[in-house]
Amino acid sequence: MRIDIITVLPEMFESILGCSILKRAQNASLAEIVVHNLRDYTTNKHRKVDDYPFGGDAGMVIQIEPVDRCISQLKSQRQYDEVIFTAPDGEVFNQRMANRMSMLDNIIILCGHYKGIDYRIREHLITKEISIGDYVLTGGEMPAAIITDAIVRLLPGAIGDEQSALTDSFQDNLLEPPIYTRPAEYNGWGVPDVLLSGHAANIDRWRHEQALERTRRLRPDLLE
Amino acid sequence: MRIDIITVLPEMFESILGCSILKRAQNASLAEIVVHNLRDYTTNKHRKVDDYPFGGDAGMVIQIEPVDRCISQLKSQRQYDEVIFTAPDGEVFNQRMANRMSMLDNIIILCGHYKGIDYRIREHLITKEISIGDYVLTGGEMPAAIITDAIVRLLPGAIGDEQSALTDSFQDNLLEPPIYTRPAEYNGWGVPDVLLSGHAANIDRWRHEQALERTRRLRPDLLE
Repeated sequence: MRIDIITVLPEMFESILGCSILKRAQNASLAEIVVHNLRDYTTNKHRKVDDYPFGGDAGMVIQIEPVDRCISQLKSQRQYDEVIFTAPDGEVFNQRMANRMSMLDNIIILCGHYKGIDYRIREHLITKEISIGDYVLTGGEMPAAIITDAIVRLLPGAIGDEQSALTDSFQDNLLEPPIYTRPAEYNGWGVPDVLLSGHAANIDRWRHEQALERTRRLRPDLLE
Repeated sequence: MRIDIITVLPEMFESILGCSILKRAQNASLAEIVVHNLRDYTTNKHRKVDDYPFGGDAGMVIQIEPVDRCISQLKSQRQYDEVIFTAPDGEVFNQRMANRMSMLDNIIILCGHYKGIDYRIREHLITKEISIGDYVLTGGEMPAAIITDAIVRLLPGAIGDEQSALTDSFQDNLLEPPIYTRPAEYNGWGVPDVLLSGHAANIDRWRHEQALERTRRLRPDLLE
């Protein structure tokens, strides 16, 4: 899978892509993640990619021209399944969407920044708008990193232990049961006896009950 | 405001904290963001902070001891308003929560990693669990960065133009109206005439209508 990220802050991705599973997935050639500096695609001699909004207002707006040039150049090189823009008013990202997107071949993610992007980009160049939640951030860079992480960890071989991804929250619409590790007692706080019993069937039953109980209590909407 | 982040991947925050508004807010002493390596707080000679889950299962679990030591040390130095854990089953983060949290003095954010953290940490040491959305990520690092970004940009003086934050999506429960910038025509795609009219009252009315229309169509739940 190939993910092209277009941003005015390419340096923000350095430590993210160099860490953990995203690094391992790239080293193992499971994912190719390429970050493009939008300023490399402008014809403006000061490498400016934003301008004031028509009609007046605070904040700067990313212009259509460099975005169009960057996306066009990428599209001339390969077929893309989706050109994604991260926006607070996009379709809300969830695990089902991550699962589906992990089966695509090539995607582009355009990161917004400043006050936003020229609306014509969204109308004509973007195929899918995604929101990672109902909050406002400095830019689309972290949302792009979140989407990339959620997708790439699902690629076969990306996380060391595939069983571990299968039992994650949301994969079966249940929250995870509580987990515990050594020591069995700390500060007077113990671990449920059943987990120390060695009785596999009882442990499985307890975990399922706990997952159901926690989901009913904390996120009943997941069971609807 | 001070934000202490506890993580097994401190290097992941380097380029995030060194960028954009988070950097500016720190330079201007609006926010102090301190990243702690959990491995500095273990007594294990191999700096190990995780172990196998009781009852068997795939994945590794972060142990209570180093987390307790780190949080205790921080608490001995100052009063904390919240000790936050980012978890897929926590309270769902939104702009209202970000607004409220931006008025706190000191918070700790503990990042989960691997299969999760010993449940006793959540029961006894954490005061607030936050989910940034219904999807599973490699760890709590990016959620911690998201929460930090959403809060810090609200601190007075953090973004250059305060008006710009006030007109963001969600601040008035409306999505933003479309915005456009130069050129007025690109590839045959134009800009709505009203924005080029120079008539401020008409522009305001158009923006409000567009914001309402987009919210009704895309996110009717925000108007309930």
